[in-house]
Amino acid sequence: MAIDPQRMLADLHHLRSIGGQGTGVIRQAFSSEDIAARRWLLDQIKTAGLTPHVDAAGNTWGLADGPSLLIGSHTDTQPEGGWLDGVYGVAAALEIARSQPGVSIVSFQDEEGRFGTTTGSEVWSGALSLAKAETQADTSGVTFAQARKAMPEATGAFPDPARFTGYLEMHIEQGPVLDHQGEALGVVTAIVGLRQLTITLSGQQNHAGTTPMHLRRDAFQGLVRLMHLLNERLPTMATAETVWTVGHARLHPNAASAVPGQVTFTVQWRDAKASRLDQMEATIATALAEVADNSGLSATIATRSELPPTEMDAHLMQTLCDAAEATAPGRWRKMPSGALHDATNVAHKLPVAMLFVPSINGISHAFEEDTKEADLITGLSALALAAKRLAPTNA
Amino acid sequence: MAIDPQRMLADLHHLRSIGGQGTGVIRQAFSSEDIAARRWLLDQIKTAGLTPHVDAAGNTWGLADGPSLLIGSHTDTQPEGGWLDGVYGVAAALEIARSQPGVSIVSFQDEEGRFGTTTGSEVWSGALSLAKAETQADTSGVTFAQARKAMPEATGAFPDPARFTGYLEMHIEQGPVLDHQGEALGVVTAIVGLRQLTITLSGQQNHAGTTPMHLRRDAFQGLVRLMHLLNERLPTMATAETVWTVGHARLHPNAASAVPGQVTFTVQWRDAKASRLDQMEATIATALAEVADNSGLSATIATRSELPPTEMDAHLMQTLCDAAEATAPGRWRKMPSGALHDATNVAHKLPVAMLFVPSINGISHAFEEDTKEADLITGLSALALAAKRLAPTNA
Repeated sequence: MAIDPQRMLADLHHLRSIGGQGTGVIRQAFSSEDIAARRWLLDQIKTAGLTPHVDAAGNTWGLADGPSLLIGSHTDTQPEGGWLDGVYGVAAALEIARSQPGVSIVSFQDEEGRFGTTTGSEVWSGALSLAKAETQADTSGVTFAQARKAMPEATGAFPDPARFTGYLEMHIEQGPVLDHQGEALGVVTAIVGLRQLTITLSGQQNHAGTTPMHLRRDAFQGLVRLMHLLNERLPTMATAETVWTVGHARLHPNAASAVPGQVTFTVQWRDAKASRLDQMEATIATALAEVADNSGLSATIATRSELPPTEMDAHLMQTLCDAAEATAPGRWRKMPSGALHDATNVAHKLPVAMLFVPSINGISHAFEEDTKEADLITGLSALALAAKRLAPTNA
Repeated sequence: MAIDPQRMLADLHHLRSIGGQGTGVIRQAFSSEDIAARRWLLDQIKTAGLTPHVDAAGNTWGLADGPSLLIGSHTDTQPEGGWLDGVYGVAAALEIARSQPGVSIVSFQDEEGRFGTTTGSEVWSGALSLAKAETQADTSGVTFAQARKAMPEATGAFPDPARFTGYLEMHIEQGPVLDHQGEALGVVTAIVGLRQLTITLSGQQNHAGTTPMHLRRDAFQGLVRLMHLLNERLPTMATAETVWTVGHARLHPNAASAVPGQVTFTVQWRDAKASRLDQMEATIATALAEVADNSGLSATIATRSELPPTEMDAHLMQTLCDAAEATAPGRWRKMPSGALHDATNVAHKLPVAMLFVPSINGISHAFEEDTKEADLITGLSALALAAKRLAPTNA
């Protein structure tokens, strides 16, 4: 029996109907729609000859006997999600497992972070205790433990990582690079690391009519100067994939006739190399100190957060490169993943690698999210080829 | 009988006690404290031999018989006001009227804009109809007409502007210039004009991890570029008194992990010359168009507002200059007023001029607002000297 792309597409469209909303899907972790999708998946797993299993974090497994290659992603969605984000990787895993021995599959729970960040794979990998996860609440105050009660079968043991030889995750890119370049596949080199500072610049709030320019200590002008310096300096150390963003800023008193006395803002930057993240952080700190000194402002860093980069396994990655070249010769690239994925957590326990397909116009986390059918099929073919080469032969 | 600076200081301290709050005052238009202060003033007016009068806008007058010079300001305060803002000009007018024939005085109502902007003098000058003013509401929905009921005497006719030969208003500077320079007096050359635009820059909201820098259309980066251009270009056409401010900005979605798709902000600029305001507006429009073109953003101007500059009367201004030089030789300057005053409205009907005294550290509209006693006395002396020269002699 060979893989059947049309069957995978049919599965994707069926999953799209569970929580379907226009062209998108609303299926947050442990909602009735999410549970319905997981129960449909458990039926498919059984039919495929794998052992269906749900662990105490709600992760939904199809387990092969003996050692196996794990393939998967997630079937929960954003509050307003697209039809492919996560689901594509699970549907492809299911289709491959139907014919390829030595393959187990998984749909991790709450990758989209209703209760945290990639909660299910975080618990399975040991990065987050189940007890702690159970207390985490969504924005309306419902805890993970409360929501889980709707899925009574979510009580099983956590499968031993030692039974898996590695983990492959296929995902839509969620960015514009492949679509922009007309390429079919991206082999992920690393999931980028992230650093984020929340900074407050404080000056002197004043009357915007009576305060001469040279006597002002305008906190917002300080932020403008800082961003100007970063726009000059960060590109000198950046690769084409390095990104930095000031996405949040709040002025005080935020009134047209008042010189802003204070501004609180975030600076976030991402790169695949920890050393480059360090270098950027030093550059940001220097620029911030310069702005404060030159503008008569005080700068305080309220919070600093950090997620280290996750390197992909060299052997798995090379196998994906070979499969990509065989499937779409000259129409693929190596690239970092700018978004987080379950693979970040799985990497604590297993060698991992990831494969991307294009997102039309780079749109994701939105109902309009889409990928061409031809690209969905190319991804499945490449992943199946890699799985064939990587699956343990004693299965 | 000569002017008595100690009596004016005593009056100021008495007024400070009506609605006193720490070192400041809470006495908004038509509050019981405001009415109490106005009734105290009416008593003083009667004792001084003037005719007490309250018009239908709540403006509180002390009218001399025959032609007279009008001197005044306002006794209502900000929601959290200082003890001198407006009150100083009224207390000085009262003290001068006690001994100087041919002087009438006024405390305009709601200069601080509980119900609008400089409501009382706006109505008296004809810039705003009483009927319209009566419908204007404060932030809690109480209208001018409703609040006025607490002062049943506020029903009188509007005094005919033709009875006044001119208007002098003395005020605290509410800015740092005189205090910074160690000067005692400022003779106002003009009340600056104001222009204000509310602008929206729109780009493309995107994932801050997966969207490469060169494919971003970051609306907030557009604002940063605009402010950088304005910081380069506006100083080339500015005087030392010209000011411009981006005091309000709101990002969308304003999240650390999202490339801002939109930012709405105000640009406000003030100058004493309409031609310079025009030139600055053209510069802002050009820079905005450049930023939109170069950054792939669209720019829309949602609102535009304009208050024209108010020139001071040359003769009255020269009289104040002579009085300033006689009272504080070499320790005064000509300067524009960056803040609005009742004189803006009065100028529709009468020749006007204004005199400033220093504000310590430029602080106003705050409980800490203060001016040295010596400066309060110098201001009174100079104003009295000018009034002596300007008051009609047939009174």
